[in-house]
Amino acid sequence: MSTDTPHDAREQLIELAAEFYDQFAEGDIPEMTLPTRTKSNIEYDESSQVWVYGDRTSTRSANSVRGARKLLKAIYTIDFLADQLGEDRSSTLRELYYLSESWDNEEAQFSDQDESNQLIEDLEIVSSVTREDFHMRPEESGATLMGPLELREQTRRGERVIHCQEDVGEGGYQIPNNPDTIDFLDHDAEFVLCVETGGMRDRLVENGFDEAYNVIVVHLKGQPARATRRITKRLHDELDLPVTVFTDGDPWSYRIYGSVAYGSIKSAHLSEYLATPQAEFIGIQPTDIVEYDLPTDPLSDSDINALENELEDPRFQTDYWEEQIELQLEIGKKAEQQALASRGLDFVTDTYLPERLGEMGVL
Amino acid sequence: MSTDTPHDAREQLIELAAEFYDQFAEGDIPEMTLPTRTKSNIEYDESSQVWVYGDRTSTRSANSVRGARKLLKAIYTIDFLADQLGEDRSSTLRELYYLSESWDNEEAQFSDQDESNQLIEDLEIVSSVTREDFHMRPEESGATLMGPLELREQTRRGERVIHCQEDVGEGGYQIPNNPDTIDFLDHDAEFVLCVETGGMRDRLVENGFDEAYNVIVVHLKGQPARATRRITKRLHDELDLPVTVFTDGDPWSYRIYGSVAYGSIKSAHLSEYLATPQAEFIGIQPTDIVEYDLPTDPLSDSDINALENELEDPRFQTDYWEEQIELQLEIGKKAEQQALASRGLDFVTDTYLPERLGEMGVL
Repeated sequence: MSTDTPHDAREQLIELAAEFYDQFAEGDIPEMTLPTRTKSNIEYDESSQVWVYGDRTSTRSANSVRGARKLLKAIYTIDFLADQLGEDRSSTLRELYYLSESWDNEEAQFSDQDESNQLIEDLEIVSSVTREDFHMRPEESGATLMGPLELREQTRRGERVIHCQEDVGEGGYQIPNNPDTIDFLDHDAEFVLCVETGGMRDRLVENGFDEAYNVIVVHLKGQPARATRRITKRLHDELDLPVTVFTDGDPWSYRIYGSVAYGSIKSAHLSEYLATPQAEFIGIQPTDIVEYDLPTDPLSDSDINALENELEDPRFQTDYWEEQIELQLEIGKKAEQQALASRGLDFVTDTYLPERLGEMGVL
Repeated sequence: MSTDTPHDAREQLIELAAEFYDQFAEGDIPEMTLPTRTKSNIEYDESSQVWVYGDRTSTRSANSVRGARKLLKAIYTIDFLADQLGEDRSSTLRELYYLSESWDNEEAQFSDQDESNQLIEDLEIVSSVTREDFHMRPEESGATLMGPLELREQTRRGERVIHCQEDVGEGGYQIPNNPDTIDFLDHDAEFVLCVETGGMRDRLVENGFDEAYNVIVVHLKGQPARATRRITKRLHDELDLPVTVFTDGDPWSYRIYGSVAYGSIKSAHLSEYLATPQAEFIGIQPTDIVEYDLPTDPLSDSDINALENELEDPRFQTDYWEEQIELQLEIGKKAEQQALASRGLDFVTDTYLPERLGEMGVL
């Protein structure tokens, strides 16, 4: 799905505009066909193990004022993106929304940011180019990586070669908005460990876990940004490294694991670019809560509801997840990663992770 | 307020415990005296231009079960912190809360994290040592810095010398949790520009504003973390650089400026360590909204309420702020930083910032 250069992405966009042109030239009413983006048209693809769109499509046609206005906005946006790519520049989704106020045709201006965000997603789907390759940046990214990995990042100011342990401070290497500007040069890593919370990420780094076990620690920062999921997938695919995910022990955190492993409904068109179906869940597992007698909080009604939904979710239709989720509903408790500190600050790196990673066959 | 080494911080804590011991030895009931931490005992200090505690104090005495339990928890916490500093380790506030479950005396265990957080703040005040010097980390920090600055960070893995343009990717240099581990080695900077949003930070970096104007761009990420405020103050004090703050144009963003410049009520005991009273506000100013005809949103009731509170706030008792806030109430509008994109993606770096910084005498 990814393209190699701004030039390729620009070509794809211009082809899209050319289609409208051809439709006009042949006397047809211009239209654009998209997969229907409702929940009922999203399927879990068993073979690739990620979410994908189903077969249903819907058409945006200029045969109504509303449809014509949507296509007009698409044309202005394509024009802006083509210029942006031509100049090798980038912008944020919010800038695009504000920028539309400067467009000469008032009908082409966006009425709110949801509309411009949605249009960019539509263009991603129709052109098979990712937002990153349109050079559209998110508002915030900010996740970091630490581990025995040397990489080269292509920045606007030239190339930077960075070793993600030796050339960075304790904060680690800041993942750029578009990690496809990175080439992996060299590494001594045995596996990747994605961590939900900053407190646990700092614990692993302080305890030297990345050095002791040759692991690349990726901070997820809660629900991970696209850049974080993308670099995780690339570490798996290109360096052939096992990917493991370490989160809190509650239904929301299982969804974080799910979005790393299987993609999300919102970005189903990007699953093949962002999801790592081979990613394995470390914990906190409900069985860990019992086995290690961790400090817990009771499940709230919305926790229970979320767990019950997960039992119906195709991504969690395995013996492993059914057993864990049913146990959690039975004990009525959840626990945070940092609850392992009740056994001492080194318990997580000396005992918990080595045991779990051993069971999983990663160590 | 800051101490130089873990050893000093440890000594301060042990002195505190020694005081309890001496009180016992002399047959007195142990007690600990603290400034009263209510809003009515916080004053704006005209000379230092920051928030400080007033003269009122309250005493925690072991003459009640409740008071005795509080002192017991303080003793256990001091013991933990002294060990942590002795081993040159660190932990998060949340880990401390969970760790208390492993303490042998159940009475010393915290009932919730608010209690342990509060106790750490009390110990900061009584010992005049900052949380950072206790080696207590926040859960998340994550702000970044980009600019013509070479620094040396003392990490657990040895020293790292990093130039914050040449040795980092587009994401910039990740500010560590305790920026007092940094020494500034060399710089070509003319001033510091603190930026509220990630989108605008990325815009300035993409447009090369840090290179063109020799500016250190500090990302505030909304309400700035202590680490971000601390490094900003150090850049001002040690390198004698003017500090400017660039935010959205709404009352919540004026508070972000206020917390950089004057400190916050919550951390009044740290104002001298964290606040930069010389920091100047760039905008978005209500006059900018009018002058540049920026895209706006209407003020909500809570915006209006916050603006009216600011008119009463001693930090905003200047002709400048009165004029700006009254204008904003009159026009009934607010604008985001990125609304400048309605004039084109380069307007902020080619026109707006040079003009404003010129007016302010920074350029």
